[in-house]
Amino acid sequence: MQITANDQTKATTMKALVYHGPGRRAWEDRPKPTIIEATDAIVRITTTTICGTDLHILKGDLPTVAVGRILGHEGVGIIEEIGANVLSFHKGDKVIISCVTSCGRCSFCRKGMYSHCSTGGWILVYQIDGTQAEYVRIPYADNSLYAQPPETDDEAATMLSDILPTGHECGVLNGQVKPGDVVAIVGAGPIGLSALLTAQLYSPAEIIMIDLDDNRLKVALSLGATKMVNSSDGKAVERVMALTQGAGVDAAIEAVGVPATFGICQAIVAAGGRIANVGVHGKPVELHLETLWSHNITLTTRLVDTVTTPMLLKTVRSGRLNPKKLVSHRFELSEMMKAYDTFGNAAKEHALKVVLKNTCA
Amino acid sequence: MQITANDQTKATTMKALVYHGPGRRAWEDRPKPTIIEATDAIVRITTTTICGTDLHILKGDLPTVAVGRILGHEGVGIIEEIGANVLSFHKGDKVIISCVTSCGRCSFCRKGMYSHCSTGGWILVYQIDGTQAEYVRIPYADNSLYAQPPETDDEAATMLSDILPTGHECGVLNGQVKPGDVVAIVGAGPIGLSALLTAQLYSPAEIIMIDLDDNRLKVALSLGATKMVNSSDGKAVERVMALTQGAGVDAAIEAVGVPATFGICQAIVAAGGRIANVGVHGKPVELHLETLWSHNITLTTRLVDTVTTPMLLKTVRSGRLNPKKLVSHRFELSEMMKAYDTFGNAAKEHALKVVLKNTCA
Amino acid sequence: MQITANDQTKATTMKALVYHGPGRRAWEDRPKPTIIEATDAIVRITTTTICGTDLHILKGDLPTVAVGRILGHEGVGIIEEIGANVLSFHKGDKVIISCVTSCGRCSFCRKGMYSHCSTGGWILVYQIDGTQAEYVRIPYADNSLYAQPPETDDEAATMLSDILPTGHECGVLNGQVKPGDVVAIVGAGPIGLSALLTAQLYSPAEIIMIDLDDNRLKVALSLGATKMVNSSDGKAVERVMALTQGAGVDAAIEAVGVPATFGICQAIVAAGGRIANVGVHGKPVELHLETLWSHNITLTTRLVDTVTTPMLLKTVRSGRLNPKKLVSHRFELSEMMKAYDTFGNAAKEHALKVVLKNTCA
Amino acid sequence: MQITANDQTKATTMKALVYHGPGRRAWEDRPKPTIIEATDAIVRITTTTICGTDLHILKGDLPTVAVGRILGHEGVGIIEEIGANVLSFHKGDKVIISCVTSCGRCSFCRKGMYSHCSTGGWILVYQIDGTQAEYVRIPYADNSLYAQPPETDDEAATMLSDILPTGHECGVLNGQVKPGDVVAIVGAGPIGLSALLTAQLYSPAEIIMIDLDDNRLKVALSLGATKMVNSSDGKAVERVMALTQGAGVDAAIEAVGVPATFGICQAIVAAGGRIANVGVHGKPVELHLETLWSHNITLTTRLVDTVTTPMLLKTVRSGRLNPKKLVSHRFELSEMMKAYDTFGNAAKEHALKVVLKNTCA
Repeated sequence: MQITANDQTKATTMKALVYHGPGRRAWEDRPKPTIIEATDAIVRITTTTICGTDLHILKGDLPTVAVGRILGHEGVGIIEEIGANVLSFHKGDKVIISCVTSCGRCSFCRKGMYSHCSTGGWILVYQIDGTQAEYVRIPYADNSLYAQPPETDDEAATMLSDILPTGHECGVLNGQVKPGDVVAIVGAGPIGLSALLTAQLYSPAEIIMIDLDDNRLKVALSLGATKMVNSSDGKAVERVMALTQGAGVDAAIEAVGVPATFGICQAIVAAGGRIANVGVHGKPVELHLETLWSHNITLTTRLVDTVTTPMLLKTVRSGRLNPKKLVSHRFELSEMMKAYDTFGNAAKEHALKVVLKNTCA
Repeated sequence: MQITANDQTKATTMKALVYHGPGRRAWEDRPKPTIIEATDAIVRITTTTICGTDLHILKGDLPTVAVGRILGHEGVGIIEEIGANVLSFHKGDKVIISCVTSCGRCSFCRKGMYSHCSTGGWILVYQIDGTQAEYVRIPYADNSLYAQPPETDDEAATMLSDILPTGHECGVLNGQVKPGDVVAIVGAGPIGLSALLTAQLYSPAEIIMIDLDDNRLKVALSLGATKMVNSSDGKAVERVMALTQGAGVDAAIEAVGVPATFGICQAIVAAGGRIANVGVHGKPVELHLETLWSHNITLTTRLVDTVTTPMLLKTVRSGRLNPKKLVSHRFELSEMMKAYDTFGNAAKEHALKVVLKNTCA
Repeated sequence: MQITANDQTKATTMKALVYHGPGRRAWEDRPKPTIIEATDAIVRITTTTICGTDLHILKGDLPTVAVGRILGHEGVGIIEEIGANVLSFHKGDKVIISCVTSCGRCSFCRKGMYSHCSTGGWILVYQIDGTQAEYVRIPYADNSLYAQPPETDDEAATMLSDILPTGHECGVLNGQVKPGDVVAIVGAGPIGLSALLTAQLYSPAEIIMIDLDDNRLKVALSLGATKMVNSSDGKAVERVMALTQGAGVDAAIEAVGVPATFGICQAIVAAGGRIANVGVHGKPVELHLETLWSHNITLTTRLVDTVTTPMLLKTVRSGRLNPKKLVSHRFELSEMMKAYDTFGNAAKEHALKVVLKNTCA
Repeated sequence: MQITANDQTKATTMKALVYHGPGRRAWEDRPKPTIIEATDAIVRITTTTICGTDLHILKGDLPTVAVGRILGHEGVGIIEEIGANVLSFHKGDKVIISCVTSCGRCSFCRKGMYSHCSTGGWILVYQIDGTQAEYVRIPYADNSLYAQPPETDDEAATMLSDILPTGHECGVLNGQVKPGDVVAIVGAGPIGLSALLTAQLYSPAEIIMIDLDDNRLKVALSLGATKMVNSSDGKAVERVMALTQGAGVDAAIEAVGVPATFGICQAIVAAGGRIANVGVHGKPVELHLETLWSHNITLTTRLVDTVTTPMLLKTVRSGRLNPKKLVSHRFELSEMMKAYDTFGNAAKEHALKVVLKNTCA
């Protein structure tokens, strides 16, 4: 095995999941990435996963993604090679890949807004090849990778690439979730469930989960939600208002990205409350300022900055947060095509996060 | 004169500006208010003013205002009579009337959200008679009045009833204006100018004023704006983006209340910036979540709570804030009808705030 | 029983624990309190408890407490009578008595600093009779009492009078405890344990408990501490530094009130960390500014304001906080003298909080 | 001249102010610094200044400073040479040198605590040669230098190396200075005056300046202080309490560094107020917890992080802050020894900041 790994290291090709235009993907040979800038690192992927965004790209919803691009923006791995200017890591280090690449030097990075790094940001897949491959090149490695503590489980660590900081930063932090709060999360997919898990770090009194799928709602209950509302009959607002004695919720977290779910958030937010948008929206929404103007609300949007990854890592290590609960299916890295089939039928397969492991790595 | 005042005190009628349905107002005799609840105070008005909201009511835009109601929600005066439970004030005290009435005890009041007091809030004019009269009854006097320090000018103090805390709380505080920021204020009416004055308490680097009226923009420059943009040609967004080298503004304060001006705010807010809505909106707006979802913005709405009135009073006393600059016209209280005529033609009359003083009081 | 209660209501005397000078206390007849101010309420005590401060008073450490005073500042009960100006409560309401009395109107109260209310503050026992009695008079009842929800356990509610908000506000909030933090609490008495319970609302990674008593440390472990350090050998600092790999702690909470324990906090606080003092100090301490000046620390002191009582009540109702765990002994109210004997020998009796219930009430 | 500069560039020696042990300094030839690490930059000094710390070092108060060290930690200049890994700057850029060197990557830097950078921090003079020379080597140039905008005055920019961010971060930000506050600054030296200038960015109602020297107090008045208290008669506390009607100050900023001045801060801070320590202390102070424990105060210490330099630069460019007012004397760089003589007799010379310019550079 060790020999194989060495051989592989010397190899100039690798396997990767490549986007070939709407509806077309392949697990195929691609050139192994190499250091381009002195701040780069090459990471050998040991665990990766598939995100809803990957499915959107495959549907052709995001036309800026070039045909021929390797997909994936999450994963953990082992540093294979580093550029001359990488100071914080060494070959052989276990690392968590942040979905956001950041230089750490520009004015946005200096205020912790890595998502808008002037020469980085969310460039994986959009501008450079992604993580669903045997190797990936990560620019600005010092700031875009996090050391994975030895005792941390790989699956849990993989959830720290994107989904957990996204739920936490865009949903929970922006929603200003506090002890005693009543929180509603609209959307019980992996992102909504990440918000659910991380919201509990702040001890809200109630977390009401809203979704169309009873199975996902049941999962949410098992992960700490205190109430569930199936919104398929169009009566979610009435139910939430009844559950809150007409007061509405302190924080409404939107984790879907369509006008209807955003509309629910507007209708259930209490006076003085917060709407934290997490969902990726494809079109405008109607904002009811004719009533909300005097409702003293705060509405936020955010692309994840992954600035709370170190803190989330501490809560994972301490056992207060167990993101592994989000993993529903496991595959060998080479079973990438099959994993996509499963995740692409998430409702039927009862899939949350599917992880792929390179057990040969 | 003293004799007259005494006589007036004993009188059971007073003069007041009464709403008689859309387009109809009269300065006429009304019964002098009396203590109803033990927490009430009766205030003899010495200075009052007219707000844009009064004009809206007169147009019939706010049908919940009953015919027969005395208008006005701003003013300063002298306490004429107090209920048995009023502990903080005495007959003869000079007071600033807060546009928001608050019990100080409910859960909203305890967190400083007086605007949503469960038995108070913005009830002047909407549920009880207002301040454009010789006398007014103020419920929950302990919490709804502020002592006016002897050395404070009456006109300046009148600006603390509503307009200054509104610009400050809804615009400047919610817009999180900080030293070095670039701020845009859309709308150079009295509210926008109040935001302009109070924004300077936090030393932003630039304050860009946007309006359709060159005269108002000139006033804004004289009050501390650093740049002005006339938006009448529909190119306000391009101009602001050019002024900010394409970065946009840190805080965009909406002080008009129509979709077009809200739209400008959405288009000029920088990544990581804030939109603070102050304007009273009559219909929904389109929120461009398809671009803003990843722009890391914060959007706020607020009905003024008047919780910063004590602080604003300190800055007025220290000379750091001079709200008297907002006063453009002065009338005797008995000239109320004429004052309305002037304020109703604000553009032509170059009117900002018109104040009315009861020099016989 | 009902008859007895009615008779008792008509009675003009009651039983109370009275301070008769250093070392002398008695459970004896005292006149039943009556309404003095219109903002007062008379509360029939159903559950009360003894605080370390009561023991200090009995030792004569607090000479400002007058001989003849009824002790106690914690408890829950039923409103027996209200003054004409009490608007939020009615006869028969179950209420939690706040250890701090506050008018809700003065400048301190308006900013939530009830402990420094200009006509209230911590006046129970210091200026007026306390709660270790069948009845107590509570001034400013609207702001100084909290409605006890029907489903809330009396013992848990009693912990909300003082000890839980003290640990939370002075220790946890001032210590800015956040997810992932390493927290040390010096002193595992009831106050330190309250800080321990409420710290967990914010999900720190580690809570290191420091005390001289192994029994108390074991209790702390059972209540959620992750590490324990017995400081009796004078090596607490070395141990904490070893446990934190030399970094020190993010928040050090002082819950004893002597120079030695404050000294431990200074020595273990990390660069950028917080020292939150909760203990009542009788003499100055040496502050090592010769090293701390460049250590970027924040040191806070606070007399509890009880402003977080409503929030704590929500977390108790939701089950996220279970303060009943602090109760080690239970007595009938009439067994007050025996309860003091037990609490006065806390170490030997393994006593934390002893509660007294008036089962005849 | 241009020729001279080129010649100088090729030269291998330069002039520098060298520490030769207590009381001994010389302006002498030293080897010109060269790039050591790829993240270094060599800066040709155009303007520098002397700090009180330099005098302390010369007195021998800081024995960790090695004999032979070049002094100085402030200055602006032009980049002469950059290491291969410096990405943000180019040869010829005008830059402000931060007194704190920071890698931008470690856990301290990521939370903006540059002063405690794990491989940087305040290393100029303490571990590497300083800025009172024709050239200086700055490690981690990307994070430790700030681009100086073309229109910014060199003297103003030099004040941004240390003194202005120190007054602002350690004094004003930590003191939480807000509009309407009453602030006291103890010590009207350059640091205290920097706190005075930057405090005004937040519009406090009063700034009381306390010092032993009437001349400095007069300067403070001219720079915006509203009250002055000469503390030489030991009655500073009484005077401040009288000026504040017995309430004390919202923020007390300690800008001296001795027990007596820290004692004044403790005695004048209002309930709920802040003590922000800026002074460098050589010995412990007595902290009066026997009274302060219940006074709800916040006490902070901080070594400047220079994280607010970009913001301060914006306020300088906008004209809201004019740090040039702090400059009392100007010298040619080659007059370094004379400049030290003047600054060393600051009281007699009425010296604040003395700047040295390399007009040949």
